[in-house]
Amino acid sequence: MQEECGVAGISFKENSNNAAASLYCALFALQHRGQESAGISIYDGTTTRTKKGMGLVPQAFRKNDINELSSAVGIGHVRYSTTGDSSIENAQPLVINYKDGILSLAHNGNLVNSQELRSGLEAEQRIFHSDSDTEVIAQLFIKELSKKDIISSIKEMVRMLVGSYAILMLIGDRVIAFRDPLGIKPLCIGKLEGGYIIASESCAIDVVGGTCIRDVKPGELVILKNGAMEARQLYNSKHSAHCIFEHIYFARADSILDSKLTYQSRIRVGETLYDEHPVNADIAFPVPDSGTTFAIGYAHRSGIQYLEGLIKNRYSGRTFIMPGQNMREAAVRLKLNTIKQNIKGKSVVIVDDSIVRGTTSRRIVDMVRAAGAREVHVRIGSPPIIAPCYLGINMPTRHELIASDKTIRTIEALINADSLRYISLEGLIKSIGIPAEDFCTGCFTGVYPVEIPGEQCTRAQLKITEF
Amino acid sequence: MQEECGVAGISFKENSNNAAASLYCALFALQHRGQESAGISIYDGTTTRTKKGMGLVPQAFRKNDINELSSAVGIGHVRYSTTGDSSIENAQPLVINYKDGILSLAHNGNLVNSQELRSGLEAEQRIFHSDSDTEVIAQLFIKELSKKDIISSIKEMVRMLVGSYAILMLIGDRVIAFRDPLGIKPLCIGKLEGGYIIASESCAIDVVGGTCIRDVKPGELVILKNGAMEARQLYNSKHSAHCIFEHIYFARADSILDSKLTYQSRIRVGETLYDEHPVNADIAFPVPDSGTTFAIGYAHRSGIQYLEGLIKNRYSGRTFIMPGQNMREAAVRLKLNTIKQNIKGKSVVIVDDSIVRGTTSRRIVDMVRAAGAREVHVRIGSPPIIAPCYLGINMPTRHELIASDKTIRTIEALINADSLRYISLEGLIKSIGIPAEDFCTGCFTGVYPVEIPGEQCTRAQLKITEF
Amino acid sequence: MQEECGVAGISFKENSNNAAASLYCALFALQHRGQESAGISIYDGTTTRTKKGMGLVPQAFRKNDINELSSAVGIGHVRYSTTGDSSIENAQPLVINYKDGILSLAHNGNLVNSQELRSGLEAEQRIFHSDSDTEVIAQLFIKELSKKDIISSIKEMVRMLVGSYAILMLIGDRVIAFRDPLGIKPLCIGKLEGGYIIASESCAIDVVGGTCIRDVKPGELVILKNGAMEARQLYNSKHSAHCIFEHIYFARADSILDSKLTYQSRIRVGETLYDEHPVNADIAFPVPDSGTTFAIGYAHRSGIQYLEGLIKNRYSGRTFIMPGQNMREAAVRLKLNTIKQNIKGKSVVIVDDSIVRGTTSRRIVDMVRAAGAREVHVRIGSPPIIAPCYLGINMPTRHELIASDKTIRTIEALINADSLRYISLEGLIKSIGIPAEDFCTGCFTGVYPVEIPGEQCTRAQLKITEF
Amino acid sequence: MQEECGVAGISFKENSNNAAASLYCALFALQHRGQESAGISIYDGTTTRTKKGMGLVPQAFRKNDINELSSAVGIGHVRYSTTGDSSIENAQPLVINYKDGILSLAHNGNLVNSQELRSGLEAEQRIFHSDSDTEVIAQLFIKELSKKDIISSIKEMVRMLVGSYAILMLIGDRVIAFRDPLGIKPLCIGKLEGGYIIASESCAIDVVGGTCIRDVKPGELVILKNGAMEARQLYNSKHSAHCIFEHIYFARADSILDSKLTYQSRIRVGETLYDEHPVNADIAFPVPDSGTTFAIGYAHRSGIQYLEGLIKNRYSGRTFIMPGQNMREAAVRLKLNTIKQNIKGKSVVIVDDSIVRGTTSRRIVDMVRAAGAREVHVRIGSPPIIAPCYLGINMPTRHELIASDKTIRTIEALINADSLRYISLEGLIKSIGIPAEDFCTGCFTGVYPVEIPGEQCTRAQLKITEF
Repeated sequence: MQEECGVAGISFKENSNNAAASLYCALFALQHRGQESAGISIYDGTTTRTKKGMGLVPQAFRKNDINELSSAVGIGHVRYSTTGDSSIENAQPLVINYKDGILSLAHNGNLVNSQELRSGLEAEQRIFHSDSDTEVIAQLFIKELSKKDIISSIKEMVRMLVGSYAILMLIGDRVIAFRDPLGIKPLCIGKLEGGYIIASESCAIDVVGGTCIRDVKPGELVILKNGAMEARQLYNSKHSAHCIFEHIYFARADSILDSKLTYQSRIRVGETLYDEHPVNADIAFPVPDSGTTFAIGYAHRSGIQYLEGLIKNRYSGRTFIMPGQNMREAAVRLKLNTIKQNIKGKSVVIVDDSIVRGTTSRRIVDMVRAAGAREVHVRIGSPPIIAPCYLGINMPTRHELIASDKTIRTIEALINADSLRYISLEGLIKSIGIPAEDFCTGCFTGVYPVEIPGEQCTRAQLKITEF
Repeated sequence: MQEECGVAGISFKENSNNAAASLYCALFALQHRGQESAGISIYDGTTTRTKKGMGLVPQAFRKNDINELSSAVGIGHVRYSTTGDSSIENAQPLVINYKDGILSLAHNGNLVNSQELRSGLEAEQRIFHSDSDTEVIAQLFIKELSKKDIISSIKEMVRMLVGSYAILMLIGDRVIAFRDPLGIKPLCIGKLEGGYIIASESCAIDVVGGTCIRDVKPGELVILKNGAMEARQLYNSKHSAHCIFEHIYFARADSILDSKLTYQSRIRVGETLYDEHPVNADIAFPVPDSGTTFAIGYAHRSGIQYLEGLIKNRYSGRTFIMPGQNMREAAVRLKLNTIKQNIKGKSVVIVDDSIVRGTTSRRIVDMVRAAGAREVHVRIGSPPIIAPCYLGINMPTRHELIASDKTIRTIEALINADSLRYISLEGLIKSIGIPAEDFCTGCFTGVYPVEIPGEQCTRAQLKITEF
Repeated sequence: MQEECGVAGISFKENSNNAAASLYCALFALQHRGQESAGISIYDGTTTRTKKGMGLVPQAFRKNDINELSSAVGIGHVRYSTTGDSSIENAQPLVINYKDGILSLAHNGNLVNSQELRSGLEAEQRIFHSDSDTEVIAQLFIKELSKKDIISSIKEMVRMLVGSYAILMLIGDRVIAFRDPLGIKPLCIGKLEGGYIIASESCAIDVVGGTCIRDVKPGELVILKNGAMEARQLYNSKHSAHCIFEHIYFARADSILDSKLTYQSRIRVGETLYDEHPVNADIAFPVPDSGTTFAIGYAHRSGIQYLEGLIKNRYSGRTFIMPGQNMREAAVRLKLNTIKQNIKGKSVVIVDDSIVRGTTSRRIVDMVRAAGAREVHVRIGSPPIIAPCYLGINMPTRHELIASDKTIRTIEALINADSLRYISLEGLIKSIGIPAEDFCTGCFTGVYPVEIPGEQCTRAQLKITEF
Repeated sequence: MQEECGVAGISFKENSNNAAASLYCALFALQHRGQESAGISIYDGTTTRTKKGMGLVPQAFRKNDINELSSAVGIGHVRYSTTGDSSIENAQPLVINYKDGILSLAHNGNLVNSQELRSGLEAEQRIFHSDSDTEVIAQLFIKELSKKDIISSIKEMVRMLVGSYAILMLIGDRVIAFRDPLGIKPLCIGKLEGGYIIASESCAIDVVGGTCIRDVKPGELVILKNGAMEARQLYNSKHSAHCIFEHIYFARADSILDSKLTYQSRIRVGETLYDEHPVNADIAFPVPDSGTTFAIGYAHRSGIQYLEGLIKNRYSGRTFIMPGQNMREAAVRLKLNTIKQNIKGKSVVIVDDSIVRGTTSRRIVDMVRAAGAREVHVRIGSPPIIAPCYLGINMPTRHELIASDKTIRTIEALINADSLRYISLEGLIKSIGIPAEDFCTGCFTGVYPVEIPGEQCTRAQLKITEF
């Protein structure tokens, strides 16, 4: 079950009771990573208590929930399931009773071998309450924990897991964080007054007044207890496989991922995009909000005036239900409107982060033409997406990806643009400033950093060794 | 009862059944004008039927509500009450049974003499179900309607009303629109395939695929019936009193108000603001979203790089409930985060639309300084707000307005800026391009276009005459 | 709009704050009179405040609603609309703003000339927010109140109203109660410690620990203020027209109506029923719960063993939604089950209060036969219902009433009973112990105490005179 | 976790789609066994699908839920948790994914050794999502199932379980029912047209038009498949240990438990109660509804007139929230009212099923005295409750049971009765007509049929042997 999620864990010194309120804020800052459900588990000195709810963070928790979770330590999760299975039973953290107490677990990522692991566990007469990867991880961990200590159990678990995972566990008064050995999903550490926070993105550290000190390293285990931090490198890999799509699209612009400020990467992508694909035009503008930073960079480098041609309705969201059959075509107009006076008679550059299916791009180009644009040039801040993601980003099947079987010229014609250009993979990687060998670029290349049945995995260099 | 609202009315040719679905979209486009409740009334050929609900448009109407309101004609309303009285009973359109049928009425604006009018009606043993201006207007209208035709009744009603009002009425199969003789609140007309739409802003016309053809003129009555339009000038005034704050802040950037595109006005305000108050700085950025267009204009004119220093959480809204006492100071951080790398060591210009109480401005300057800015210059796209609004914009009392009794130098010090500059009123008016005599600038000058007890009203030139 | 309702009003001495909590309990005791919505208005010393909600009393008010309505005086209402129009806008008390303040009004009954009165008011340019009788009453009253004092206004209003009405008004700190001159709908007075209560039934007095002292007399006005009571006879009628159906079915068994304990009346009806229509049988049992008291009386008089043959599911209510098409016939089984062992091989008497459409009776007889009864005798505690009610009891149209055009023998055959007998009207009236001339028996005779277009009204003796 | 529950399972021939609708009705008939949550699992030919919800059956399922569960086979559950832990996660049936598919399990009863079993499973690194007995049962079963077939797995499981359990499982298209070897909790079998139903009580069979053919025998396994039934005796015990409290209080009066009609048992208890403890009185009446059938029997045998003295508000339930502090004493009045006229000046017998804490009994006697009773005699249809229940009936602790440490004379004085008499245990058992050796009478004797730490278990005769 493919899921996009956000996780956070906090530990203050014992006498604090701020963990839940801080986690609430942290989850609010990570809201873009999951809007379907939210949950917080805390340890109150005696037991682990958990509140979960459906919807955005302010809806998921009732007024008193946070106050009732008074504690110095806890973890939280926001979830967006990409399957239809949106119910409170699937909300995280997953809470499990086992021999020695309660385990609460929050997971961001996607396992490739979930089904195999599950079959193995089921063969041992273990039962599952859901079909989530998270329950598989929890079962594996508990199974090992009966034989070993926490660190050895995680080590053993890692040997079995194939895929991406940034995991936070609450066991008694300890927060235990682990990032997969290739560092596919982000996880970073912040220093707070009297404690530490670990979260999917640094914006969650900022919101609680903390300072982002570093990323959790790929293969690293970090334990928070009583407001102190202890780290241990469990696995090593010569190279990483950071998800490049986090930098381009998924992470917030104000987040720092793997030491790179997303905003700056995107500005540079916009600049490189102009260097690679210049055009003479009167104005440049983004598809808001995903293309905004790219467009600012493109305009800045080119000297073309940055003047918005598309305005986004701030109230449009996923929950909109369109009444009436013959109004279906209005859907894109409900989200975006053109500013005709800015566009009319002009040659325009529309900048966006990526093209997935191409249907929205076509509608936008048509709207801009209808607003009177003389020429419409489309510039995209990532290479063509030719292959699906198996590691945590919600994407359609290969068949639905417009670039999986079409040339750029064909797509240009299909979306009705005067010109369509994508940044090169090299240009993109250079703009972010992380070595090419340390990225997962599966969606742009079809080559993945882990073994996926039926897909290529040439990156043999990604040998993971025990530290 | 001061209210900010949005209104829309649509009439198609008889055989259509699209009015409710189109109104739903139009209200969605006007959502920024009111988020508390929404309602739609339609005439189904036999009777007037109405659905209202609390919350945003998608929450206010259930899945089948719109389909059940199948019709060729109707009106709608979104409401944001500025008082605490937020209940379904106050949702509009107001529906009234009278001798000859049903009147549905939607109103945007604020009456200054509501209490006097009400007392007069009560002296005639009339009863009221609410304390809203809208019910006063409805009662006055019905009273006249028993003696006169619709047009004469509106004429008579206008003689009595003091304040701002853009009114839409549904009487049987007719939509009747009227804009106050000074044109304080906006109202514009759009042509649709097979019909017409009248709405508070042109963005509501765009969303249903229509073309904005013109504003409803101050003092003009427009009647839609069976997809056709008929207009009649009831009152004349040498000058208008358009609300200038609609252009600066309240209306959407893609709306055209009184023939002026809001986006363009705001770009020009940003440009003029630089002309009036230049500064040497490394980057310029807005307080998002209210200052964005101003900042783009300011950066463009100045040549200073436009690079965002503040990122807004797209999920922050009015409904956020802050848990915990000691986290109260985090409130602004939940909404805005700084991009430190863009700011650090730099001299920055922060551009916003206006300063009301000054408390948020101070917090923002402090955040930007904490992110390492070397110098912080604040530029405001409107003159100091020194007086309250009585005509439909929700503002605090005079006492709470920071500029009501303080000099710009004092405010500069209070918000901790290296420099604070406001655009001049002349610069603002010139940027919009409407003659100064045609604006209400009460909030900037303390002089109002209508008689308000205890306030100045020197604009004797605003004589309204019957056409 | 036909409505069944319950009303209550309470006044304590000034320093009390118990009115709302007591009204809450009183409405709970009157819940059987209306389950759709509930409301309470109180006067807090400064203004009138009201809370209303949909559903049963515990659902209609939130936890804090009652505490927030702290007060010494107030009125309340429970409503069951018989039309489909079930919405919060129609919940009572109806609250109206008029010249001199706020009127809150709660009404139980039904006007026959509502439409004419309304037309007259509309001709005077008055507007209506609903199509309820209650709003007509309120408008008439307010209209008179502008010219006269409260007592004269009620006098004048009574001259105009045709129908049944038990009215409670809250005007400032006074509760004003009035019962129609024929006393059709019940209303009684209770003494409390430090105050008085007026309510539709005495069970509402008991629940708050009060003592029922007497009925409000037909045509009598009662005013409660500061915990004291003042009464004044406004109208006189030689005879009354108490609704006989309240005694048989609608009122609770523990209520005293017009000095008669409902329970005792029903026991005597059961006894008389046996005297009039004896039968040899093994056991007698009721259709629960409506027939229970009648059956106890029948069994007692006859010496036939009282042994239940039908058990009612305590959770069956109006809100049950039956899934599936082919399970429709199960509906009666969901509500009632037979106790086969009690019935098998026996001759049984089933006692019920009345037969309306006859469809349920048929299903019950069939169930009892299926359970093995040898003989099934049906005894009914009221005469055949041959005509509709226009005065406040929800009944189907004449056409749907099985006895409107069929003989008892025919009905006996239709419901598949070995014998069917109804009590005589004389027997019924004698059992209750109120003179025949003081009852409305319209549903049994087709002759009504007020003029109803198209119906008989021979009771010329019901001349109402001013006191 | 002590739970009172109701279970039902249905299998029709393959081409039917009525299972869910029939289960909905069956659960509705079992509503008295659990009001907190309800759930239905069906097998649709491909997979097992489940819907659960909070509240009564009509609230727990939305309009379309049942239609969407179209199927020929399924199981259902209603639950009333006696702990505070009322949440959707604990609603049953419990659904579990295991190696070979999906297991859905519904359980009524209570395990005594749940914690030990759980510890054993946890020692094998198994994890738990809840602290319910049901999950323990499911884990044990799945564990065995990996090594054996279904029947052997149940056999093995039974060896381990100590306590009461009536279990329904849905595995693919089979419904598997098992009743514990002592038959503590009820479970019976009904024949339907084209299928079978198994349910906690026979009233659930009646409601779907079925015929109760027999009980599931203690220690018997019953499998339903494709509308056919197959039974197999797995365990034998010379004697049973049927819960006697089901007959007295918990089961519906129209249910047949272990071949005994509850209604008839209760009538006979009333009769025996008179034989053992006669009294001269004017009237006899029950505490409704629990005492009704007993009172009818008592009155019948004694010849004392059956005339109700207490009326129950049909809308009183568990959800009532009492506003106000000083109204707390009104709580019993909200539920019960006296009929003074029936009581005044009379010597009365109040009949109830049992006395638990004694507080309600005192309030009732006081109410009846306040209504003017000359003498108040209390007669109880069960012996004094002196010990808690560990096997599925929600009872307070020993300390709270008024009879655990007080004589009948003392209780008589405490509840303010002129006389208080309980039926003897022998009288009770004789009235029901099941041999004493086949009952669990732990609550009356403190001697239990299974080993409970710290309690007596002299019934060594309850040796369970494999069949």
